[in-house]
Amino acid sequence: MEKDGNLMYALARRLWPINRSLSGEGVRSTLNILREVIPNLNTKSIPTGQKVFDWEIPREWKVNQAYIINPRGEKICDFYSNNLHLVGYSMPFNGKISLNELQEHLYSLENQPSAIPYVTSYYKETWGFCIAHEKRLALEEGDYQVFIDAELFNGYLNYGELILPGETSQEVFLSTYICHPSMANNELSGPVVTTFLAKWLTSLEKRKYTYRIIFIPETIGSIAYLSLNKDQLIEKVAAGFNITCVGDDRTFSFLPSKRGDTLSDEVAKHVLNWIYPEYKKFNWSQRGSDERQYCSPHINLPIASIMRTKYGEYEEYHTSLDDLFNVVSPQGLWGGFNALKLALEVLEKNCFPSSKVFCEPQLGRRGLYPTISIKGGANEQSLMMDLISYSDGTNSLIDIANICNIPVWELYPIVEMLIAHNLIEL
Amino acid sequence: MEKDGNLMYALARRLWPINRSLSGEGVRSTLNILREVIPNLNTKSIPTGQKVFDWEIPREWKVNQAYIINPRGEKICDFYSNNLHLVGYSMPFNGKISLNELQEHLYSLENQPSAIPYVTSYYKETWGFCIAHEKRLALEEGDYQVFIDAELFNGYLNYGELILPGETSQEVFLSTYICHPSMANNELSGPVVTTFLAKWLTSLEKRKYTYRIIFIPETIGSIAYLSLNKDQLIEKVAAGFNITCVGDDRTFSFLPSKRGDTLSDEVAKHVLNWIYPEYKKFNWSQRGSDERQYCSPHINLPIASIMRTKYGEYEEYHTSLDDLFNVVSPQGLWGGFNALKLALEVLEKNCFPSSKVFCEPQLGRRGLYPTISIKGGANEQSLMMDLISYSDGTNSLIDIANICNIPVWELYPIVEMLIAHNLIEL
Amino acid sequence: MEKDGNLMYALARRLWPINRSLSGEGVRSTLNILREVIPNLNTKSIPTGQKVFDWEIPREWKVNQAYIINPRGEKICDFYSNNLHLVGYSMPFNGKISLNELQEHLYSLENQPSAIPYVTSYYKETWGFCIAHEKRLALEEGDYQVFIDAELFNGYLNYGELILPGETSQEVFLSTYICHPSMANNELSGPVVTTFLAKWLTSLEKRKYTYRIIFIPETIGSIAYLSLNKDQLIEKVAAGFNITCVGDDRTFSFLPSKRGDTLSDEVAKHVLNWIYPEYKKFNWSQRGSDERQYCSPHINLPIASIMRTKYGEYEEYHTSLDDLFNVVSPQGLWGGFNALKLALEVLEKNCFPSSKVFCEPQLGRRGLYPTISIKGGANEQSLMMDLISYSDGTNSLIDIANICNIPVWELYPIVEMLIAHNLIEL
Repeated sequence: MEKDGNLMYALARRLWPINRSLSGEGVRSTLNILREVIPNLNTKSIPTGQKVFDWEIPREWKVNQAYIINPRGEKICDFYSNNLHLVGYSMPFNGKISLNELQEHLYSLENQPSAIPYVTSYYKETWGFCIAHEKRLALEEGDYQVFIDAELFNGYLNYGELILPGETSQEVFLSTYICHPSMANNELSGPVVTTFLAKWLTSLEKRKYTYRIIFIPETIGSIAYLSLNKDQLIEKVAAGFNITCVGDDRTFSFLPSKRGDTLSDEVAKHVLNWIYPEYKKFNWSQRGSDERQYCSPHINLPIASIMRTKYGEYEEYHTSLDDLFNVVSPQGLWGGFNALKLALEVLEKNCFPSSKVFCEPQLGRRGLYPTISIKGGANEQSLMMDLISYSDGTNSLIDIANICNIPVWELYPIVEMLIAHNLIEL
Repeated sequence: MEKDGNLMYALARRLWPINRSLSGEGVRSTLNILREVIPNLNTKSIPTGQKVFDWEIPREWKVNQAYIINPRGEKICDFYSNNLHLVGYSMPFNGKISLNELQEHLYSLENQPSAIPYVTSYYKETWGFCIAHEKRLALEEGDYQVFIDAELFNGYLNYGELILPGETSQEVFLSTYICHPSMANNELSGPVVTTFLAKWLTSLEKRKYTYRIIFIPETIGSIAYLSLNKDQLIEKVAAGFNITCVGDDRTFSFLPSKRGDTLSDEVAKHVLNWIYPEYKKFNWSQRGSDERQYCSPHINLPIASIMRTKYGEYEEYHTSLDDLFNVVSPQGLWGGFNALKLALEVLEKNCFPSSKVFCEPQLGRRGLYPTISIKGGANEQSLMMDLISYSDGTNSLIDIANICNIPVWELYPIVEMLIAHNLIEL
Repeated sequence: MEKDGNLMYALARRLWPINRSLSGEGVRSTLNILREVIPNLNTKSIPTGQKVFDWEIPREWKVNQAYIINPRGEKICDFYSNNLHLVGYSMPFNGKISLNELQEHLYSLENQPSAIPYVTSYYKETWGFCIAHEKRLALEEGDYQVFIDAELFNGYLNYGELILPGETSQEVFLSTYICHPSMANNELSGPVVTTFLAKWLTSLEKRKYTYRIIFIPETIGSIAYLSLNKDQLIEKVAAGFNITCVGDDRTFSFLPSKRGDTLSDEVAKHVLNWIYPEYKKFNWSQRGSDERQYCSPHINLPIASIMRTKYGEYEEYHTSLDDLFNVVSPQGLWGGFNALKLALEVLEKNCFPSSKVFCEPQLGRRGLYPTISIKGGANEQSLMMDLISYSDGTNSLIDIANICNIPVWELYPIVEMLIAHNLIEL
């Protein structure tokens, strides 16, 4: 645990200062750093203005400087001290305005007076600053010099894509997002855990499924990706997860796919039930990330979410308080990684075992069963006998584990042993 | 509310004194009065002796006079003071008999000593009088002159039928009965509410469904109607209700169709759940009206019942106490009318919306979504987003309302707006 | 009751002393005695060495004498005083050994010090004695003369088979086992109750189903029988029961088939629910008899178990305490017989009634319904009316009984009466 948790945490710290948004340098820097761990990650780009279903790829946004000079001549809301201070996709502005005028461009949270909120205005041209409410209250009357040196120009929307081929063309699809500035559980935990999952998947000697792993900006990114890959995804994706909010150590959460009964849902619930039985179950009406697109009408991919504390369900969410000190920890990241790794292993190991002999096999002569029959014996064999009994070719390994009320991973060694003895086939 | 409730109540008062039975003048007078509200109502007739499945249309029954003269010379049990006094379909009789002999022809209720019970003998030739039990106990020894001037003769069974064409030939079938003498919840509330539903349906500019509305005598009437229209009904009826006991203001009740999972059941339960969550749920074994025929083997129409207080479930049922003073009220009638009107509206408005764009539409540029994204915003849009998300063409509007745990009528304006923006199609 | 209970108990007493095992004289003697009650029982044999799926028919085992002489010269663990003393399928042995050496061949139960346990070693060549733990503790140091005059030789595995033809070739399959020495609930109750069920079935004037009834050694016998009859059984068996542990009077128990929703399961649960509502429900993971083979992968026969106290669930199980004095009784045997007889009757009587008239029939003119209609009347007819209402040809009699919440046998006379009146057909 410790090693991977610490490595993921170190990666999150490196990514922390970068000013990510829908597009631009922040996204590209982030992908470059991830590529140090997973060199097989490819970067793709879509030009500004390209139609993606009902949307259009926005302009690229670049911030050179942004701050306010208060009447005392002090610099406040400096973008370089915290990139949350500037409303995402703010237009350039340079001018002296009154406090009253300024107030119309300020955002703060009355209930969280020390937090800088996270605010964006991607699709309407405006500008604004985010500020801790306690600081806002202390602003004095007078003239404020506002300076936003930002550029909006035709460029590209970038994303990372990694395809790991497997024995079949059926795909497992993992998606995470890289468009939020300095916030930890939502969002850095997502790309960090996904990167380490990609590294682990790359290291596997064999994979049953082909893995499609993407690092995109949220919403516009998943819409764009679907507009380029819809038919392939609908045809191939057997299971998958949207990976977000997997970094704190306070709970586990589950958000189903829209269909609610896909392989992804089944696997996620099985894993969470055995590693954290009190996990929080949300429903589709509580969705809020890229599953909105992946499960949208006529697309309906089997994408569920395994999370630690879900977006919107913790106080620090979408503020400067969602940090690497009080919210995200190595333990939290490792727990999120582990739950998703277990889920992917279940997908890889799941099968429909079918007995190769009629009736119970004679296990005694294979040394698999006591040769002396006495009251109370043979209990250790009961799980093996149950597995054989349900090996009709119609029950999946997950089904059998659920019937026997055990974690499916307890069946893996038994399956291997029965295959070795030529008693079942998959 | 008030106006319609009062109009329905006034109609019930006009119909009250008429001596309705399976056939005869009472049925025809009743239909004539209903025709004042719904001039498009047609009267049909089936002659005595006609075979209708396992039954035969009975003779017409006409009562000129009926009373008893007691030993003191006083007239008692006078049909003209209360038409419940005479057992329905009593044969003519004129003779002086002892109290003992008379007792064998008297019907009363020991537990409801002030009530005149409602008794019929349609298919066995006999005669009898119904009397309040407290009056029966006071009868003195002596000779009683019994006089029943009634006629049974070959005539017709009459019923009213109204067909309102719609955009499709799929039908909604409404049936109510007009065969009980002066009783209010069971029966006058049924034809009165159905008349006003018919008036409202007639007034609609467009109807998706064709409506078939009938006013028949109970049992023999529904059997006769099925014998004439079975194939048409089985082929066309998509939903429908048997309308009875819809006039008191004490509760709401639901009796399912025999299948229990038809569109009618789904709609009725949805409406009652939102207008009166504590409504009483009965099951098929508690049936007792024309649904017995409509849902009989090999016919199995989707006919359910939305009621106020169900027949057999209130003390005044089938006695002179089921009146327009203590049981049925304008409020009660309006409540029954409103529940059925809501149900018919749900049938009309129900649809299978299908999104016309892939992924979520860009609602911001249509002014349907906030352009600034800040924590805690956009809640009002969540119902619209849920509706879009489920618009796969496979979920009905009722399904979506049930998933979102809201009354379906809250979705009507959103559906209209999304159609106006060309975002969904039905 | 008493007569059949006593006859079954008397048969169990005759069978008690016989030394049954997988094969040999004990099995043949047992079948001969059963044939006195059911002369139509056939004996079949399969030779040693024949392959049966993954198994092989074992050698025949014959015990002439077996005992131990203790250091005081006393004969202990004498096979002739109790055939449980010798481990089943013990090899011959004759020699003087120390107590220490002897201990390795002794079996006893620390928690049940007065009980001789039942131990077998069918498939590994060894020998051993079973002894009450309290006697084992009293064994003195010294030399013990062990004498086992037993033979293992090529012979036959024998079993009894009875086929009772019915109107259809669809089969009801009953299986019980005859391979345990002197134990009462597990096992004598099984063959005894099955014998009397076979006698009763033979006596029936007509049978809808063909009955296949077998008396076999457990496990190897059912495997062998399946290896000879698998295709026929899979094609023909509509329902069936493994009959074991049906002789004590302490409770009733149910073990489902592996599928859990077969006709056998439905019938067994219905019967037990009405004769002993508090019956114990086990699940497939608690199986332990020949259903393990009958429901094995790719075979999956609809075989469930109706039991009194289930094997493994009572203290006396698989010891000398499972006897005809404290465990099995005439009342217990009769109860087991009665539950299975009721279940077989349900199978015979079950049908899919279909109304022959449209709408409700006119029952009054057939004398089946009151001709006077008054509030509160006609309750006795409601079950008949419910049966008619559900006679769509799609509901089985069991379905209808479950919907009406009554034992199905209450519907038998109504079905007969409605058939007599030509109102339904099956």
